[in-house]
Amino acid sequence: MKEQKALQQIRQQIDDIDLHIQQLLNKRTALAQEVAKVKIENGESTNFYRPDREAMVLRTLMERNEGPLAAQEVARLFREIMSACLAAEQPLQVAYLGPEGSFTQAAAQKHFGGSVELQSVSTIANVFRAVETEHACYGVVPVENSSEGVISHTLDRFITSPLKINGEVTLPIHHYLLGKAASLQDITHVYAHPQALAQCRQWLGDQLPQVELIPLDSNSEAAKRVATMGASAAAIAASNAAEIYGLQVLANNIEDESDNTTRFLVIGAKDVGPSGVDKTALLVATKNKSGALQNLLKPLAESGISMTRIESRPSRKGIWEYVFFIDIEGHIDEQPVAEALERLEQESSMFRILGSYPKAVL
Amino acid sequence: MKEQKALQQIRQQIDDIDLHIQQLLNKRTALAQEVAKVKIENGESTNFYRPDREAMVLRTLMERNEGPLAAQEVARLFREIMSACLAAEQPLQVAYLGPEGSFTQAAAQKHFGGSVELQSVSTIANVFRAVETEHACYGVVPVENSSEGVISHTLDRFITSPLKINGEVTLPIHHYLLGKAASLQDITHVYAHPQALAQCRQWLGDQLPQVELIPLDSNSEAAKRVATMGASAAAIAASNAAEIYGLQVLANNIEDESDNTTRFLVIGAKDVGPSGVDKTALLVATKNKSGALQNLLKPLAESGISMTRIESRPSRKGIWEYVFFIDIEGHIDEQPVAEALERLEQESSMFRILGSYPKAVL
Repeated sequence: MKEQKALQQIRQQIDDIDLHIQQLLNKRTALAQEVAKVKIENGESTNFYRPDREAMVLRTLMERNEGPLAAQEVARLFREIMSACLAAEQPLQVAYLGPEGSFTQAAAQKHFGGSVELQSVSTIANVFRAVETEHACYGVVPVENSSEGVISHTLDRFITSPLKINGEVTLPIHHYLLGKAASLQDITHVYAHPQALAQCRQWLGDQLPQVELIPLDSNSEAAKRVATMGASAAAIAASNAAEIYGLQVLANNIEDESDNTTRFLVIGAKDVGPSGVDKTALLVATKNKSGALQNLLKPLAESGISMTRIESRPSRKGIWEYVFFIDIEGHIDEQPVAEALERLEQESSMFRILGSYPKAVL
Repeated sequence: MKEQKALQQIRQQIDDIDLHIQQLLNKRTALAQEVAKVKIENGESTNFYRPDREAMVLRTLMERNEGPLAAQEVARLFREIMSACLAAEQPLQVAYLGPEGSFTQAAAQKHFGGSVELQSVSTIANVFRAVETEHACYGVVPVENSSEGVISHTLDRFITSPLKINGEVTLPIHHYLLGKAASLQDITHVYAHPQALAQCRQWLGDQLPQVELIPLDSNSEAAKRVATMGASAAAIAASNAAEIYGLQVLANNIEDESDNTTRFLVIGAKDVGPSGVDKTALLVATKNKSGALQNLLKPLAESGISMTRIESRPSRKGIWEYVFFIDIEGHIDEQPVAEALERLEQESSMFRILGSYPKAVL
């Protein structure tokens, strides 16, 4: 009885808070619509989504958060709130590499929240095309995957596309043991990409100490092969491989470290302003490979700008032998970055800034 | 300049609102934790999730919403807020029919929000088992699918499982045209379940007026068959069939009406209290089929209780010839429902209430 009354009182307080939050959400939406109105009057009616401002708002929220709600959860809720407000200003179309249920869809939802219009598109090239032809405001494509490596299709599109990188999304990767065995005891061989085998070493040692580990070119290949074999074979792969190849999930999340992520890029037609914690992606080429790379990178090293990755790709245009995709920290609007890139440009036979964008917040 | 200042002022107001919302979210979480504390002191430490209360809160929010944020969006945001608060009280494990990326996962996320621990489970039987053995607090399983019909695996599990239905989730269904054609002009034949062909009649008439429509047993069957054929064949199916059978998505959302839904059930170990707008699921059996069904249903008709569906299944136990799954409107705690069911029980050779649960809100 006493407890019932205590509960009732707390619930009444929660109801009052809910009413208050609801009013604030509606007020926030009305203000967002006012922003849209001012922008339309100002002639900037095409696009109200500001990835830089969103990243700043989320970072501020996380830094000042006192709990008990975790900062990550606060940011996740505000991502949804901003998504809902934006949809009330302007419905945003986002094309992603489908089909529905793909990891890229999950990345698009994580980045844009649940209130945008997601369009499933069948190929990476078609995601670029959807944004280039303005059928979508933004696109989301995978760019690197910890077990399959860099997605070269995506990088190659930037060589010819005028689109800019407007953001990045990271998703945690989980590994699954897939197969046909009725119990783990029946398994004698585990197939996977060497990286996946390494990432699950501890789990495999604990649960399947006697099995033989067989490295293959990719985890998908492993799942495909195991689909043609008996119950003593198992593969390590992403869970969707179970559906594709008709295998059972024998164990979930078997990776030793859970900080494994897949990375996606948000592409759009415009540049994004600085958010304070940004990355810049470059596409550069040299005619002569030997020694040229060191010269290219010197300005970065000398300015103390950290390079977070470099990827070389054979150029398809025939004009350059190789092109390099380089990610650095900082925004092109920041003076030291601008100066270093000016010097880097002088060392290269082709130079393009693919975009400055906020580092993934969530 | 003037516009810039106006924008800055509005943004400042938005920032103030955000700070306020953040404080309220943390306060709400602290109150939810207090509820948990009172319940633990009271000895009810096992489960803090209250589907009935959540449904009531969401309905109240939607009814009183004055906008400009749409009521659906407000409810969606509060679903996430309640999910985050609940996770701060107690991490909730929810098992669903996987793999990751399945429609059932989408249903589980829609119902429980993004803050629960979702466990991908390989079969419907294993979802039941996970909840029965308390490896998960709740389970989510598909129960009917507008193109494939009722999921008999799920119904059959209720014949032997002690679990209760704690909720329902509906997801809109979209149809996709899948195939290998470079353009719609190349298509001469479209394969699909007759229901899917009917649901896309208008689109097919507009876009593919000359093609031959070929009915098959299921849309999956259609996609599977088209995968073995040339570019002139196309199938209507769910988008994930594209991935499974290696087909391209030729057109999205081709259904004429978008109110097509798939239905999922939330299963749990306990009963749920009344939320005000509820459904009750029954499992009943008669030894003798002819005439018995009418007698069974008479008490419902006489009490004016509406039956939303009835499904007959051959009993596997051999004791009864048929069992009937009956859904009615109302909660077992409501007097007229309780009385009608008492009379119905007298007419049946087996009678079980599978659960009273809130009607899907979102």
